[in-house]
Amino acid sequence: MAVPVNAGNASAFIPPPQVYIAPSQGYLEKLAFGVANNQPVLLIGETGVGKTQSVRYLAWKTNNGLRRVNLNGATTVDEFLGKMLINEQGTYWVDGVLVSAMQAGDWILLDEINACLPEIAFCLHSLLDDDRMVVLMEYDGRIVRPHPDFRLFASMNPSEEGRYSGTKTLNEALLDRFPIVIRMDYLSEDEEVQAVTAQSGNRDEDVVRRMVRAANDIRAAIRNEKIFGSFSTRRVIDWARMALSFPVREAARYAVVSKQSAYDAETVQDIVDNYFEA
Amino acid sequence: MAVPVNAGNASAFIPPPQVYIAPSQGYLEKLAFGVANNQPVLLIGETGVGKTQSVRYLAWKTNNGLRRVNLNGATTVDEFLGKMLINEQGTYWVDGVLVSAMQAGDWILLDEINACLPEIAFCLHSLLDDDRMVVLMEYDGRIVRPHPDFRLFASMNPSEEGRYSGTKTLNEALLDRFPIVIRMDYLSEDEEVQAVTAQSGNRDEDVVRRMVRAANDIRAAIRNEKIFGSFSTRRVIDWARMALSFPVREAARYAVVSKQSAYDAETVQDIVDNYFEA
Amino acid sequence: MAVPVNAGNASAFIPPPQVYIAPSQGYLEKLAFGVANNQPVLLIGETGVGKTQSVRYLAWKTNNGLRRVNLNGATTVDEFLGKMLINEQGTYWVDGVLVSAMQAGDWILLDEINACLPEIAFCLHSLLDDDRMVVLMEYDGRIVRPHPDFRLFASMNPSEEGRYSGTKTLNEALLDRFPIVIRMDYLSEDEEVQAVTAQSGNRDEDVVRRMVRAANDIRAAIRNEKIFGSFSTRRVIDWARMALSFPVREAARYAVVSKQSAYDAETVQDIVDNYFEA
Amino acid sequence: MAVPVNAGNASAFIPPPQVYIAPSQGYLEKLAFGVANNQPVLLIGETGVGKTQSVRYLAWKTNNGLRRVNLNGATTVDEFLGKMLINEQGTYWVDGVLVSAMQAGDWILLDEINACLPEIAFCLHSLLDDDRMVVLMEYDGRIVRPHPDFRLFASMNPSEEGRYSGTKTLNEALLDRFPIVIRMDYLSEDEEVQAVTAQSGNRDEDVVRRMVRAANDIRAAIRNEKIFGSFSTRRVIDWARMALSFPVREAARYAVVSKQSAYDAETVQDIVDNYFEA
Amino acid sequence: MAVPVNAGNASAFIPPPQVYIAPSQGYLEKLAFGVANNQPVLLIGETGVGKTQSVRYLAWKTNNGLRRVNLNGATTVDEFLGKMLINEQGTYWVDGVLVSAMQAGDWILLDEINACLPEIAFCLHSLLDDDRMVVLMEYDGRIVRPHPDFRLFASMNPSEEGRYSGTKTLNEALLDRFPIVIRMDYLSEDEEVQAVTAQSGNRDEDVVRRMVRAANDIRAAIRNEKIFGSFSTRRVIDWARMALSFPVREAARYAVVSKQSAYDAETVQDIVDNYFEA
Amino acid sequence: MAVPVNAGNASAFIPPPQVYIAPSQGYLEKLAFGVANNQPVLLIGETGVGKTQSVRYLAWKTNNGLRRVNLNGATTVDEFLGKMLINEQGTYWVDGVLVSAMQAGDWILLDEINACLPEIAFCLHSLLDDDRMVVLMEYDGRIVRPHPDFRLFASMNPSEEGRYSGTKTLNEALLDRFPIVIRMDYLSEDEEVQAVTAQSGNRDEDVVRRMVRAANDIRAAIRNEKIFGSFSTRRVIDWARMALSFPVREAARYAVVSKQSAYDAETVQDIVDNYFEA
Repeated sequence: MAVPVNAGNASAFIPPPQVYIAPSQGYLEKLAFGVANNQPVLLIGETGVGKTQSVRYLAWKTNNGLRRVNLNGATTVDEFLGKMLINEQGTYWVDGVLVSAMQAGDWILLDEINACLPEIAFCLHSLLDDDRMVVLMEYDGRIVRPHPDFRLFASMNPSEEGRYSGTKTLNEALLDRFPIVIRMDYLSEDEEVQAVTAQSGNRDEDVVRRMVRAANDIRAAIRNEKIFGSFSTRRVIDWARMALSFPVREAARYAVVSKQSAYDAETVQDIVDNYFEA
Repeated sequence: MAVPVNAGNASAFIPPPQVYIAPSQGYLEKLAFGVANNQPVLLIGETGVGKTQSVRYLAWKTNNGLRRVNLNGATTVDEFLGKMLINEQGTYWVDGVLVSAMQAGDWILLDEINACLPEIAFCLHSLLDDDRMVVLMEYDGRIVRPHPDFRLFASMNPSEEGRYSGTKTLNEALLDRFPIVIRMDYLSEDEEVQAVTAQSGNRDEDVVRRMVRAANDIRAAIRNEKIFGSFSTRRVIDWARMALSFPVREAARYAVVSKQSAYDAETVQDIVDNYFEA
Repeated sequence: MAVPVNAGNASAFIPPPQVYIAPSQGYLEKLAFGVANNQPVLLIGETGVGKTQSVRYLAWKTNNGLRRVNLNGATTVDEFLGKMLINEQGTYWVDGVLVSAMQAGDWILLDEINACLPEIAFCLHSLLDDDRMVVLMEYDGRIVRPHPDFRLFASMNPSEEGRYSGTKTLNEALLDRFPIVIRMDYLSEDEEVQAVTAQSGNRDEDVVRRMVRAANDIRAAIRNEKIFGSFSTRRVIDWARMALSFPVREAARYAVVSKQSAYDAETVQDIVDNYFEA
Repeated sequence: MAVPVNAGNASAFIPPPQVYIAPSQGYLEKLAFGVANNQPVLLIGETGVGKTQSVRYLAWKTNNGLRRVNLNGATTVDEFLGKMLINEQGTYWVDGVLVSAMQAGDWILLDEINACLPEIAFCLHSLLDDDRMVVLMEYDGRIVRPHPDFRLFASMNPSEEGRYSGTKTLNEALLDRFPIVIRMDYLSEDEEVQAVTAQSGNRDEDVVRRMVRAANDIRAAIRNEKIFGSFSTRRVIDWARMALSFPVREAARYAVVSKQSAYDAETVQDIVDNYFEA
Repeated sequence: MAVPVNAGNASAFIPPPQVYIAPSQGYLEKLAFGVANNQPVLLIGETGVGKTQSVRYLAWKTNNGLRRVNLNGATTVDEFLGKMLINEQGTYWVDGVLVSAMQAGDWILLDEINACLPEIAFCLHSLLDDDRMVVLMEYDGRIVRPHPDFRLFASMNPSEEGRYSGTKTLNEALLDRFPIVIRMDYLSEDEEVQAVTAQSGNRDEDVVRRMVRAANDIRAAIRNEKIFGSFSTRRVIDWARMALSFPVREAARYAVVSKQSAYDAETVQDIVDNYFEA
Repeated sequence: MAVPVNAGNASAFIPPPQVYIAPSQGYLEKLAFGVANNQPVLLIGETGVGKTQSVRYLAWKTNNGLRRVNLNGATTVDEFLGKMLINEQGTYWVDGVLVSAMQAGDWILLDEINACLPEIAFCLHSLLDDDRMVVLMEYDGRIVRPHPDFRLFASMNPSEEGRYSGTKTLNEALLDRFPIVIRMDYLSEDEEVQAVTAQSGNRDEDVVRRMVRAANDIRAAIRNEKIFGSFSTRRVIDWARMALSFPVREAARYAVVSKQSAYDAETVQDIVDNYFEA
């Protein structure tokens, strides 16, 4: 499922070179299928599981600009589509982030799409429908159609998934506009050891592997609702990097344990103690 | 109930050519009756049942422009009727989507009409009443009357229908202004097989028919409240199209199962397994 | 109680000629008394009972302009009294619908007056009080007094009438400003048959009479809380008109039954079946 | 307690001549004491008991302008103190109703003072305090002190008086700024007969007296919580006036009974029947 | 703890000469300590206990301007710090009440500080912190430091003091910025008799003393939650003044009893009866 | 972990010289590590524990400007990133506090970060992510990258820490962007005696030590939920300073006891009595 490199592209939004350990589960392949077939892709997964990173990596590899916008309920249609401003010649129109990306041919990644305002959802309907257009009703009613390089991705968090939540928290009509939905999980132990080493600069593989195992124990404790929160690969990287300057247990105190509430800190400390004796 | 083709019409809102498998239940005939007699029509049905598509198809067939607006509570009278803007000559008026369509003689489809703001409902009253006009109180009090080609459609979702909901969620006074109300249902199996084949490009009729049967089983599970959500024809099309590039069960994972919450995914997977063995 | 015709009046708001079957209960006579004595009249009745129509008819008969405004809580004092706009000479005042009608000598009908904002209620107090004036505090504090032809009507719905609702939902202080309050009911059977025939063009009196009887049975079911909603004369007219093009039972499906929720549809279908066998 | 006539005063807000039957309870005397000593007076009483009328009458008698403003929570500081507007020379200040009255030397009556916004309450504190001034912070910080003829009155409704309501619903700090608080009650029977006759033009004293007795029975029913609402002298006047054109029982239907909810109408009809047999 | 008189000061906000009976509890001494050491002082006490008066008196004695602002949740940062206005040269800055007082060297008294908006609390933090400055982020980011004569006082009401209220209703971080907190109580009987006589002009000491005793009995009833409200010295003064023109019991009716709800009026009347027989 | 002095820096936001008793727990060392490695640091601790002071001290020592902003939910993106203003040339952009600090190379301390609005959290994501930039969507979409001297700190209060609060009240995604999280506690007794003496000017070590012990007893009472609130070092300093002018117990009344609610005051008074007999 080859995605061609967008050779001549000079967008200011092309990501810097990335170190990325692609997970073995074929997520990238499905992302690439969406890009190749010009179909929007929705990514669902925990904080820090690598949703943004996978899209950013693919954008870098294919030389496409990537813009991000968070639709957490505070983003208005003004910011999304555009709005009128005023100067001495009167009012003029300024494109919002979606219209700007649509016209520049950049990719766009919509974070927390399940929390978007209904009027933003409706903009997306007509963009992702057979209509494939956006009408600037706030401006002069003009019709905007996407540049051929434009692609749309969305991501959301399943963390409040209870009996009646999950994908359902995304409006069914909007969910229906995403032909491809990828549910992402954490890296495998080996993949994560490799990623942490590469990104923290900490080359002590034994230490890093013990850190990853501690991370996985903490994740299990979260899954079993013994403690609250999430535990990203990024947090392991911070720990590993801090352990280059401080003893590994002291580094754990400031990079891992202190990020838990007083109630959960003890459990986390026990897990750390298990891998790194006092 | 012939609707004449609007031959000379050059509206930018005429839909592109459509592939549409008209359902056998006579919905189109009633839509056409409304158009011919200049009476507004209200369509009630589940997400993805084809409400928008039927109006879009008729607009295309008769060469009429079609505009859509979602009245989900976030659409203000400003966007609907128009508003004052300011430039160096002072303020000036910009028509909203309704007034613009009324004057251009385009058709308009109002989505989620049951959620419209009361002041929008009131605009609609005087447009759909014997008065057949809209007064631009926000502007200079001028009276706008519709172009002879203007037609109005509305749609809404019955999905929260409980003992005291249903049509009732639409204000009685507004409901009263729609002489014709059509309740739409899913396509029959044969109709849906035909529609999925035509729109996905997947010509393996046996596979597509099994997909449609799985879809109908999932719909039954939703109706019986075993799982939550809805299941549109569009979702079957996505699955069929993805199955051209991936094995049918892997395609199901990304196009069907991942769109359910973790709780419901198992039920849906079982139904898929039933038609496509592992 | 003769109301003189306003012979020379050329208001753009004079209603078009009306077909109106005046109910036999003397409502028109009391309306005329209010007009003749320059006293505001409040009309209370179900949706579709003919509140607006009776005022519109009287306005047409006497050649007076009639403006309507809905006070459903979304109408602001800006729209009601007027507001400042800005152009290159600075700000200027634009009259709202009440002030505009007061000065033009048109009649005004305030819909859903029981839902009006408190500041609008207060404007009405000083207009309907001994003061008989409105002060434009938002402008320059000027005092507006009504043109001699100006008349004020209000209407509201008793439909949520429970033990503690009814007229009470209208603020007592405002209710007190209406010397005349008319509670309107549906037309009698004969009156309604006559009205439906005249307005639908369906001259089959036997069919129309059966439709009216079905309507009255449905109204009884609503009154007895077996089903929910309301059933206006307008709905019978739609049915009668549709029955000119479709079989009467098929017309009932789209003009009557589909306007009920799934729960109530069966009851309504039974009533229809009673008058029009399958 | 003589209040001098403000002989040379030409305010546009001087009320027109009033017919006013002063109640025998000495309210006017206390009002006059407040005016003479330049102390604000608060009037508490039911809707229609004559609070506004007593102040209006005194203003007319003494040739003082009277302005009214309702502080029901929708009146902003902008309307009360003033606000900046914009024209081609930039912004300029427009006085609000309080500042305008303070400077013109008119009286002001604040309705529903118990519902005023806290920032309006605070304006009143510094006006009614030893400071006796208002600071226009929204403008340029200038200090406004009242014209010697300026007087301030306030009124409120005790109707929601329960165990913990009553005067208490007025902020204690604001209540403290009114040295004189008058609790007003309905007129006595003789006073009311006289007032109704004078204001309705209905000179049949026997009929009017029976109407007043019916009104007092209805008021008793309200006090005993058998029915809901209030019953002003104004309502008796409307009835008496309508009875000049219609039979007294038919007049009762449109002027009295129809103002009650369906639940209470029967009780009220019984009382009417008691005085005017069918 | 001598506070020097600010001899040359000509602020328009210097209070007029005051009659003030300083309470014997040393409050003034602590206020003076705060002024002398340039430390903010917080006053806590019931409505009418004399919080404002004590600061106003000290300002008058020392010839300092005093400005007041109520922070009851409706005061915005705009009014407090300043805001941009617009004229023909574009926008310009207008100082708010705090910045204006800081620069003029006036004192400022913040009423109801426990109800201030969080962003106002934050302004106060950086003013009262070691930073001793305010940054005008809304303007151009400039830093304002206080004039040497500037002093800050705050007051609040403990009246809702329950188990978890009291000082706690003031944010701990803000409370921490007030080195001195004074809890004020009512005057002693002799002090209050002296104050009432001086301020009402009623020189009948026996009558005034009985009024003060009645006031203290009412206060006890409030403290014991037999009745609701508060009872300020001001209210006794109003009564004493009205008793110069009306019999003392009639004066009590309009100045004391009518300020209580119907439920509490009887208790208050009994206390009055106790000191002034019918 | 040496942090170089920013020798040539002339920022107006460099703090004045500070007296600071560095706690012995190595907090400063971790702060310095964050500064040296350009990693954001989050400080968690009670009001008055010294979070702000530690950053301010480090800024002063290294000659860096420090700006603070409180993100308590009232700070908008406008104030944080910037906004459009208008003058006679039309609209122009004014940088907000974050962008201003980012470009000037000042440090910024974000107070109450756990209460920040979601759209501010999102700004911080892209600043603290691999992107290390902020996009000014409200302006012209330009990209701002931080000056090399720019550093970011955040602080928050754990005071509502219950079973499910604590760090969790900070959004996990944002918490994840802080590699270093420091939980700060009160000073030790000796450290606090030293700090109070240095900052209050009260050199009576015996008295100060007893004050500190009383403070620690009060803190214990708070921790055990016997009383409510917090007790900062600042409060001990105020007491010690006031005790230079008043007897130590009278000073306690105004600097310590009066800051507690009526309910808690007794407990606090007992603790004071324990160290300073009556």
